[in-house]
Amino acid sequence: MALNALTPEFAAFLAAHLPEGTIREAEPRHLADPRGRWTGQAGPVALPRSVEEVASIVAACASASVGIVPWGGGTGLVGGQLMANGPLPLVLSLERMNRVRDIFPEENMLVAEAGCTLQQVQDAAAAAGRLFPLTLASQGSCTIGGNLATNAGGVNVIRYGNARSLCLGLEAVLADGTIWRGLTRLRKDNAGYDLRDLLIGAEGTLGVITAAALILHPRPAQNAAALIAVPHPTAALTLLSIAQEQLPGMVSAFELISGMSLQFLAETLPEVRQPFAEPSPWLVLVDLGLPERLEAEQALIRLYETGAAKGLALDAILAQNETQRAQFWTLRENIPTANRRIGAVSSHDISLPLSEIPAFIPAAQKALGDIAPFRVNCFGHLGDGNLHFNVFPPKGGHKDDHADQREAVKRLVHDMVASLGGSVAAEHGVGRFKTADITRYADPGKLAAMRAVKAALDPAGILNPGAVLAG
Amino acid sequence: MALNALTPEFAAFLAAHLPEGTIREAEPRHLADPRGRWTGQAGPVALPRSVEEVASIVAACASASVGIVPWGGGTGLVGGQLMANGPLPLVLSLERMNRVRDIFPEENMLVAEAGCTLQQVQDAAAAAGRLFPLTLASQGSCTIGGNLATNAGGVNVIRYGNARSLCLGLEAVLADGTIWRGLTRLRKDNAGYDLRDLLIGAEGTLGVITAAALILHPRPAQNAAALIAVPHPTAALTLLSIAQEQLPGMVSAFELISGMSLQFLAETLPEVRQPFAEPSPWLVLVDLGLPERLEAEQALIRLYETGAAKGLALDAILAQNETQRAQFWTLRENIPTANRRIGAVSSHDISLPLSEIPAFIPAAQKALGDIAPFRVNCFGHLGDGNLHFNVFPPKGGHKDDHADQREAVKRLVHDMVASLGGSVAAEHGVGRFKTADITRYADPGKLAAMRAVKAALDPAGILNPGAVLAG
Repeated sequence: MALNALTPEFAAFLAAHLPEGTIREAEPRHLADPRGRWTGQAGPVALPRSVEEVASIVAACASASVGIVPWGGGTGLVGGQLMANGPLPLVLSLERMNRVRDIFPEENMLVAEAGCTLQQVQDAAAAAGRLFPLTLASQGSCTIGGNLATNAGGVNVIRYGNARSLCLGLEAVLADGTIWRGLTRLRKDNAGYDLRDLLIGAEGTLGVITAAALILHPRPAQNAAALIAVPHPTAALTLLSIAQEQLPGMVSAFELISGMSLQFLAETLPEVRQPFAEPSPWLVLVDLGLPERLEAEQALIRLYETGAAKGLALDAILAQNETQRAQFWTLRENIPTANRRIGAVSSHDISLPLSEIPAFIPAAQKALGDIAPFRVNCFGHLGDGNLHFNVFPPKGGHKDDHADQREAVKRLVHDMVASLGGSVAAEHGVGRFKTADITRYADPGKLAAMRAVKAALDPAGILNPGAVLAG
Repeated sequence: MALNALTPEFAAFLAAHLPEGTIREAEPRHLADPRGRWTGQAGPVALPRSVEEVASIVAACASASVGIVPWGGGTGLVGGQLMANGPLPLVLSLERMNRVRDIFPEENMLVAEAGCTLQQVQDAAAAAGRLFPLTLASQGSCTIGGNLATNAGGVNVIRYGNARSLCLGLEAVLADGTIWRGLTRLRKDNAGYDLRDLLIGAEGTLGVITAAALILHPRPAQNAAALIAVPHPTAALTLLSIAQEQLPGMVSAFELISGMSLQFLAETLPEVRQPFAEPSPWLVLVDLGLPERLEAEQALIRLYETGAAKGLALDAILAQNETQRAQFWTLRENIPTANRRIGAVSSHDISLPLSEIPAFIPAAQKALGDIAPFRVNCFGHLGDGNLHFNVFPPKGGHKDDHADQREAVKRLVHDMVASLGGSVAAEHGVGRFKTADITRYADPGKLAAMRAVKAALDPAGILNPGAVLAG
């Protein structure tokens, strides 16, 4: 079914039926891709302040067969939040639905509207003596609605799971304007199909999330972090396994950092202090959250010494205080900044079965070498099997020199990942940039079921047209 | 669309196209309800040995519009595994698909076929030095396929989540006979809609689960358990909160047991040793899994002493060894047996927001008293807000004396639960016994979405007809 372009008349109709200021011209931020590849079409944005307003907007768009692009914080990396072409859609920003509606510290949960930033949710939890563990570099601007729509990951997935694992229930508007009021405070509820998890990760194509019941955790009594130099990814994986045995349930993050990451930081951000005097081929950043009775520093020393005795750990720096722990994380979080400054030929958000990782990294690098002498910066969330395997021009080169190799690079990496049982959309989602990958790599049975579900829940195809499943 | 009854001719057709012995007469166990309320219709059962055989059976049934009732271990309590009426269906037992196909201890995962018993999965994990934490009284006979189809809960949900939280991916046969091969080893994968969680908890109405990729956990270095007498459920909740602060991530179970549970055990199972000399109004059974460096006994003593100082704990017995810990669990697991011997007027598998529990219990008891002087046995998984709130005749009475009050009792309890934001199908599922409750209590938007999904994925309605969503 063909969608209609949004007309000035329809925008005027919406404006007349909603409170003043709800329908406006979209600002550049509503149309931008953080990596600058695509730009959304200029047009109106709706800024509703209640689920009822969202419902009336969606119902009107359904009647008029006008597409809707839900918009959270605009930080998505796969183009899920913008339509560069096709019939002009309505951008539906949740930014004015930004209240924490309720908090129940004794139940370890809170209810937040979709437009709350992740930072705001973290702060509300902290103010109640609790932890909302989802942690992303973009937490100051990304929203919890977007986090859930994309099932965001980040650095604490190894301990607390991804966004899906932190959600009890949703309030959402379905494609015909029906409101689903599912903001449950229940930990267990098997009354029917799991609509929550179907909407989570659907990137706004099956419903518009307007609020969420979120799971909080106790704050660990103490945190401790170390940077450990390791000889190769296999050592990092074995060290992770030792850490999880020595400290079950206490490893909050276990990040792999390549020597290339440090080199890129040195090239582009010389003010970021290099941790070790000798360059290390690989690092891990391990972060622990511990109960009060455990000796944090001893636990890390023990981990390092166990690793060193087995040749798994070359050197280590223990954070002596919170400031130094923050410095370790600054190092980690500056890697994407350095990458942007170097300029990637192709970036890949992949996941692999854990034990396939050590062989994959050199094999993919070697195969890429047959195309050009690329530099690979591989880093990511080792405990989740989730790597950012990003391919850069040789030193001194520019990504534009390799524009015609980009597709071959992506194909090579993605084909290899798929052949090992991996995913080419691990934590950033599918958006519009990866819909062809889904068609190429998804199980045909799953793809057919996805199409059937989309047709059933959004028969006119108005919700985020072209995202996840291309038309 | 009307289904056709399974005919002898169709059974013969299936038998001719499948290996010998695949199509048989159903045994009584394939048609039985553990609580004896309903009985399935005599007819054939299919016992396939591979996903391909399941696919050809489902495709044949789809062509013939014959219903399929997937069957795991037959332990479901809500009639999801049997059809007492309607056009004769094919019972599809997964019992011969009972291999653990693969195990990756270093990845903390294994792949098990749907017909593996839960015990078998636990044993395979233990043999690899790992823990599969799902724990149910029926684990010797229930199957992992059934556990996933019903999103089973049990006693360790507070720490490890329910069946859904322990599954990475599925292999399943969809309603047209398509095989979905989704046995991923990935921890992070956002490539499309969450078909896994849609099938989990759908009770066989959207697809037949044939195998699952399951998450394993490290085995805690040590376990420790205590029975703590508490004055009332509010004290138990506060004690839980203290336990989670003192021992974050280490509370494996926190079970509430009413004084009535102990009284029922004394009446019907006098051989089960009563823990305390003085009858206590309420007990909690707390089970810890700890890292090696923590002093288990000290941790429990500290918890008790903190509770006692606040008037939350009246008395406590610490398990001195594994035998005594097992005795505590035997006490807990015998409560349903005692209940069966007394004979319930109505049993309720409910969940509530945690902080609503203390007020709910006396309020529901009081309201029930206006119908008859019932005895209520309330016990369950306090940390999950999941109570088994079961209503029994007065001492010396018989459940049959109250048969005409049964519906009113159920309605009263369920209405009160729903008014507090609770669920009337917390961990046993909906099956066929609770479909009217879903219609009554579910959010209308969710119900409409569920119907749309069912129609999309099983347009002929052959998968477990009448379960979850009544015709």
